[in-house]
Amino acid sequence: KALFAQAGDIAGVGVDTELITSVPTSETFRARNFTDGEIKYCESAPDPTASFAGRWAAKEAVFKALSVPSKGAGASMKDIEIVAGSSGPSVHLAGAAASAAGGKTIKVSLSHSDTSVVAFAVAQ
Amino acid sequence: KALFAQAGDIAGVGVDTELITSVPTSETFRARNFTDGEIKYCESAPDPTASFAGRWAAKEAVFKALSVPSKGAGASMKDIEIVAGSSGPSVHLAGAAASAAGGKTIKVSLSHSDTSVVAFAVAQ
Amino acid sequence: KALFAQAGDIAGVGVDTELITSVPTSETFRARNFTDGEIKYCESAPDPTASFAGRWAAKEAVFKALSVPSKGAGASMKDIEIVAGSSGPSVHLAGAAASAAGGKTIKVSLSHSDTSVVAFAVAQ
Repeated sequence: KALFAQAGDIAGVGVDTELITSVPTSETFRARNFTDGEIKYCESAPDPTASFAGRWAAKEAVFKALSVPSKGAGASMKDIEIVAGSSGPSVHLAGAAASAAGGKTIKVSLSHSDTSVVAFAVAQ
Repeated sequence: KALFAQAGDIAGVGVDTELITSVPTSETFRARNFTDGEIKYCESAPDPTASFAGRWAAKEAVFKALSVPSKGAGASMKDIEIVAGSSGPSVHLAGAAASAAGGKTIKVSLSHSDTSVVAFAVAQ
Repeated sequence: KALFAQAGDIAGVGVDTELITSVPTSETFRARNFTDGEIKYCESAPDPTASFAGRWAAKEAVFKALSVPSKGAGASMKDIEIVAGSSGPSVHLAGAAASAAGGKTIKVSLSHSDTSVVAFAVAQ
């Protein structure tokens, strides 16, 4: 095991849940924490408030998976971009988040019910 | 890393959450989306409605982990069977879900509180 | 794949969710299921009830990831200790939980909203 054990080792996992009503909805909050691409995507979603909340949870989950303490409402949430795709969301990292990730691959998934969002991320 | 990196790579993760009250309970819905084995199991569970909701979430999570867009209430949810076992649930795939999985292994876990269900799946 | 497939294989995953109000808060329950270190940590947290509930869910998730049936309110929940750290929680195992884990590594993450907790664990 010693020789090849590092190949598929999981570096960290992260989960986050939020009540949809607890995630701020102001334009200031959104501009500070979401990229232009995320804002465009969420504003055109069937339920923008739930979409923003889901992406917020996904960012928190990625932070945890990277074992980096979350910056809360800080600007660096923008360094973690959740990119929508036909086969599910992917993660683009920039700035301090990219540095923390090193060469690790991040997988993320998110879901919301009528009242809450849950997101999960794994760094490998 | 290049030579053996594929051994333990995670292909995808999936999470799903639902309010238990939001999952349809009609016999038609159940017959369309659950296998005979799942129906038998859930109907004999302490709380059948919660059990069906948990399995529904588990199927959605597996779909996401396979990076296949969910078919929603479509018939193909039946291609993902959540099989109860003494050491937790396992996944049996058939049809299009099996094709999408290729040789990947799927692990799944699910949980419900009084009001909601959460399920998580990983494909490796 | 055959030769090295075991290196990074995921042995099991576990997820647990609870309404915060559904986790018992008596001193007897806490003394039975949490270590002295966990009790000290949770009692000094901003919201002790939520912290105890989150750790309870984390223990359940670890049990599931180890494919060991949970003992519910039994004493062996104490064998799974969730240890707080600046880069997130880690898991210390003792007794039967340590035996079940063998040499596996456990990663865990937990989160709580105003009303519920969600925890996720993976054994590799």
